[in-house]
Amino acid sequence: MIYELYYWPGIQGRGEFVRLVLEDAAAHYVDVALVPEEKGGGVSALEHYLEGADIERPPFAPPFLKAGRQLIGQTANILLFLGARLGLAPRDASGKLWLHQLQLTVADFVVEIHDTHHPIGSGLYYEQQRPAAKRRSKDFLVNRMPKFLNYFERVLERNPSNGPGMVRTSITYVDLSMAQVIAGLRYAFPTASRNALRICPRLRALHDQVFARPRIKRYLASERRLAFNNDDLFRRYPELEIHDKASARQ
Amino acid sequence: MIYELYYWPGIQGRGEFVRLVLEDAAAHYVDVALVPEEKGGGVSALEHYLEGADIERPPFAPPFLKAGRQLIGQTANILLFLGARLGLAPRDASGKLWLHQLQLTVADFVVEIHDTHHPIGSGLYYEQQRPAAKRRSKDFLVNRMPKFLNYFERVLERNPSNGPGMVRTSITYVDLSMAQVIAGLRYAFPTASRNALRICPRLRALHDQVFARPRIKRYLASERRLAFNNDDLFRRYPELEIHDKASARQ
Repeated sequence: MIYELYYWPGIQGRGEFVRLVLEDAAAHYVDVALVPEEKGGGVSALEHYLEGADIERPPFAPPFLKAGRQLIGQTANILLFLGARLGLAPRDASGKLWLHQLQLTVADFVVEIHDTHHPIGSGLYYEQQRPAAKRRSKDFLVNRMPKFLNYFERVLERNPSNGPGMVRTSITYVDLSMAQVIAGLRYAFPTASRNALRICPRLRALHDQVFARPRIKRYLASERRLAFNNDDLFRRYPELEIHDKASARQ
Repeated sequence: MIYELYYWPGIQGRGEFVRLVLEDAAAHYVDVALVPEEKGGGVSALEHYLEGADIERPPFAPPFLKAGRQLIGQTANILLFLGARLGLAPRDASGKLWLHQLQLTVADFVVEIHDTHHPIGSGLYYEQQRPAAKRRSKDFLVNRMPKFLNYFERVLERNPSNGPGMVRTSITYVDLSMAQVIAGLRYAFPTASRNALRICPRLRALHDQVFARPRIKRYLASERRLAFNNDDLFRRYPELEIHDKASARQ
């Protein structure tokens, strides 16, 4: 089967969590936004599914995936579907549910990361909400980021199979997502994330292990992988960063 | 089976989406926070699962559900699990996935509703973030709330089985959640939600139909159903409301 991934061009965004799974599994897929419009691709292909009056099960927003006749939206839901098919999830029902629970917690984390630069409205520019972004980022870096990271570190620690990932003995889709989040946090908040990850050796090792996987390495070296940038989910605005522990306590 | 629901006492919160499913299905369940501490209940029972060093699969936050030996966290994940067991979801895999996708979109909506009064940090008081809350609420009421409501109205309209719910011919867990969201929005933003719902007749009918279901009616009349209140997800702060279309355009 050839999967069709629908996501905005020019950014990694939430589409990247799906791409990492497809790439790691060497699945055949088309990134539809990159196909020329005259060949049925481009942003108008996305808009067709979002706005077309004939779509019986319209997604609310990208990313969404077409697999045969099925149209599947919501990042975590796409991974739930793909994980089972592509060997990136455990086979038993209770393991699948636990993995999905972790992915939904990653999704919550990602919303909070996004909202550090967009606390007032996603339709406004960052520059229109800078003071609020500064306050929200501080709360995020001091309270929320450590809470999430320490949680996932604990999950790794308590995996009775002793890893290398969060569930059972193999790397799963949630591990790919977590490694991507760590890479994104290091881009966005280099100092604060280094400080927070100091007590998370298992997360640091998981990041390295995921990005050392042959297909992921090949993907990262390809032109299909976009660079982090400030139109994206993870953004580097130095004024939002906390540079030392003293200012974190203020 | 007797289900154990773990959620903070005193608020409806995200636990309410689970309660509505359990109540509608007449499932046997214990709301553990309401059981006396000396009988193994109370907030310390929640904390045991959140913080206990012996919990192999710790949830990140309430609500979570115990079903036999399984511990399941994340609201949408709990409903995914319960929906199939309690007859509140379609039976085929693709219908289940579509229903879950809708529930995840409800979850996104709920985050944005919560953040109208807590745009800077969930650990701060509302009073510490009032000006930002005012701006975020305006963006929410003018842009986001109509976008979400019109989306779900469209989903109802396009259900080829012609309802009464969003998927197939029966009420499902996502319909229960949606009705609860409409009730919450009417509490929090009576004027703006009335204006937005004017062009959503199917959502208004869905709300009425859900709250007319005999077991839901009985639940709402019982003391198990808490009133909406300003320590909760949906909060009524008149200063965050938009009272007419002119101020919405400002």
